[in-house]
Amino acid sequence: MADPAPSAPLAVSLGDPAGVGPEIIAAAWERRDSAGLPPFLAIGDARALRAVWNGPIATLSDPNHAASAFADALPLIQVDDPGEIVPGQPNLPGARCALDSLELACGLARQGMASALVTGPVAKSQLAAIGFSYPGQTEFVAERCGVAASNAVMMLAGPTLRTVPLTVHVPLAEVPRLITSDLIMCRARITARSLARDFGIDAPRLAIAGLNPHAGESGTIGREEIEIIRPAIEALREEGIDVIGPLPADTMFHAHARARYDAALCMYHDQALIPLKALHFDDGVNITLGLPIIRTSPDHGTAFDIAGKGLASPGAMIAAIRMAADCAARRR
Amino acid sequence: MADPAPSAPLAVSLGDPAGVGPEIIAAAWERRDSAGLPPFLAIGDARALRAVWNGPIATLSDPNHAASAFADALPLIQVDDPGEIVPGQPNLPGARCALDSLELACGLARQGMASALVTGPVAKSQLAAIGFSYPGQTEFVAERCGVAASNAVMMLAGPTLRTVPLTVHVPLAEVPRLITSDLIMCRARITARSLARDFGIDAPRLAIAGLNPHAGESGTIGREEIEIIRPAIEALREEGIDVIGPLPADTMFHAHARARYDAALCMYHDQALIPLKALHFDDGVNITLGLPIIRTSPDHGTAFDIAGKGLASPGAMIAAIRMAADCAARRR
Repeated sequence: MADPAPSAPLAVSLGDPAGVGPEIIAAAWERRDSAGLPPFLAIGDARALRAVWNGPIATLSDPNHAASAFADALPLIQVDDPGEIVPGQPNLPGARCALDSLELACGLARQGMASALVTGPVAKSQLAAIGFSYPGQTEFVAERCGVAASNAVMMLAGPTLRTVPLTVHVPLAEVPRLITSDLIMCRARITARSLARDFGIDAPRLAIAGLNPHAGESGTIGREEIEIIRPAIEALREEGIDVIGPLPADTMFHAHARARYDAALCMYHDQALIPLKALHFDDGVNITLGLPIIRTSPDHGTAFDIAGKGLASPGAMIAAIRMAADCAARRR
Repeated sequence: MADPAPSAPLAVSLGDPAGVGPEIIAAAWERRDSAGLPPFLAIGDARALRAVWNGPIATLSDPNHAASAFADALPLIQVDDPGEIVPGQPNLPGARCALDSLELACGLARQGMASALVTGPVAKSQLAAIGFSYPGQTEFVAERCGVAASNAVMMLAGPTLRTVPLTVHVPLAEVPRLITSDLIMCRARITARSLARDFGIDAPRLAIAGLNPHAGESGTIGREEIEIIRPAIEALREEGIDVIGPLPADTMFHAHARARYDAALCMYHDQALIPLKALHFDDGVNITLGLPIIRTSPDHGTAFDIAGKGLASPGAMIAAIRMAADCAARRR
């Protein structure tokens, strides 16, 4: 894995070409000056962009030319042509195009030819249909980077809140048995390290949510806080990590409470994503911690129902590009 | 149960006299004009009020005199003297005082001598220590009103969101087996009826959250949505109730999504309370639906740690008083 050159662009995969990825990436390029975005390079299909956007595209073969082209056109590296793509109508050639885009963009970041990786939204069911065997893009990127998927940590970040879900796409009934002290400690360490390295927070403060209502209320509403979460917190403190908790989940996400920590570790998907999306629906960023490269993505899906209609907000994509650039600059 | 006279005041129990109840009720009275509050009558201990407030108190024996006294003093009905109460230091006489206040205030509302009941915050552990055998004030009030506790429905309401948790103070691991189609339908009917009767919403729109991430994603992340929630929704629609769902819980609480419904039925405590408190921490109201009387309370606890220090915000108490008055006016 090579260090990226300071002038290397960010690599942005277009995601599923029939989703909102192409249009929000084009919109981000249009706002490059007002949003203060550094040069980035789209990876994907020119025709899919053309179907939703009539701005200038500079098709390149060498990513080193992206920075100089960026002022006047959206730099693009074309992957294998998927044929005609109709916005809102995903198909298998489009899914292959999404995977090719992801693979190439990830490779450029790993080789240091891109300063960071930003991934456009893909459709998991479409990818599964072409034999993609990972739960999502995160696990694919982790494997390509030589990192065990369990050590790649998803963080959702908005302007006033960062959350890390300890479990994600599992039924709620399975959550309690999946929460272990080891899992909490592993994710907490990676989160603390990344807050320092990628976010420039010298002394990161973590908050850990309880699993049960009122964080179990001294064991009267569940004992996981006493038996699993609190021992993990004590061990983390002995390692020198600044951590509070277990906190009642309902009172830890208002403005005053959020000011007490830099990231909240949450026990399950909705505990992390309900507050994040309630507060930052249009500019939430998904960032993968614990990788040798920087990887971000907008915290939304392909939105096939509105693709090509000019309705998709580029806010989260712009936030994802900016966060990737900021983190990459701090690592240099 | 008698209909309240149009001029009847609201009855506001002070809650635990060592908590923040007395000071936020006094502060609400001070702001009666700017907040547009109708006459209300405090029920509790004058000395507990005096310990945190030096404004005028009109101690009454007849609640009918409250409306005329209200402009110049906080009307109060004294319950049995608990002795000296120190803010922040709960004790058993104080717990008895809290229960006496609740009982009297509830009785006034039931007899129509008060137009509605607003309850100040109590400490459940203190009440349990004096033999109070109910999980909380809600169940006590329900029983006094002759309503089964299971038919008294807790709704949390802020200016832009109303949520109804289907389960409350149970360990998360027990939630999945407690969710039944019957429970959903029972709570949905009571909620819809109350939105029409108490909130003046002619055609109430309900949203029902999924239990699992992404509302189970077509059964791949849990089957409760398919087996339990969806059949309940279909049955409710056949009854003529306007209901959508099961919705993915993480995407149903941002501003655009909230505009689609008048109340969200949630599967568990934190699913309902995380978004409510993230958005409306300082003015959330707990209202009990399904009772013959109106009952509200501020959506926070006794806050013994800040009691008597002038730090407690009266926002939620003011909102609870205003909501109780508005609902009572609609029932007339």
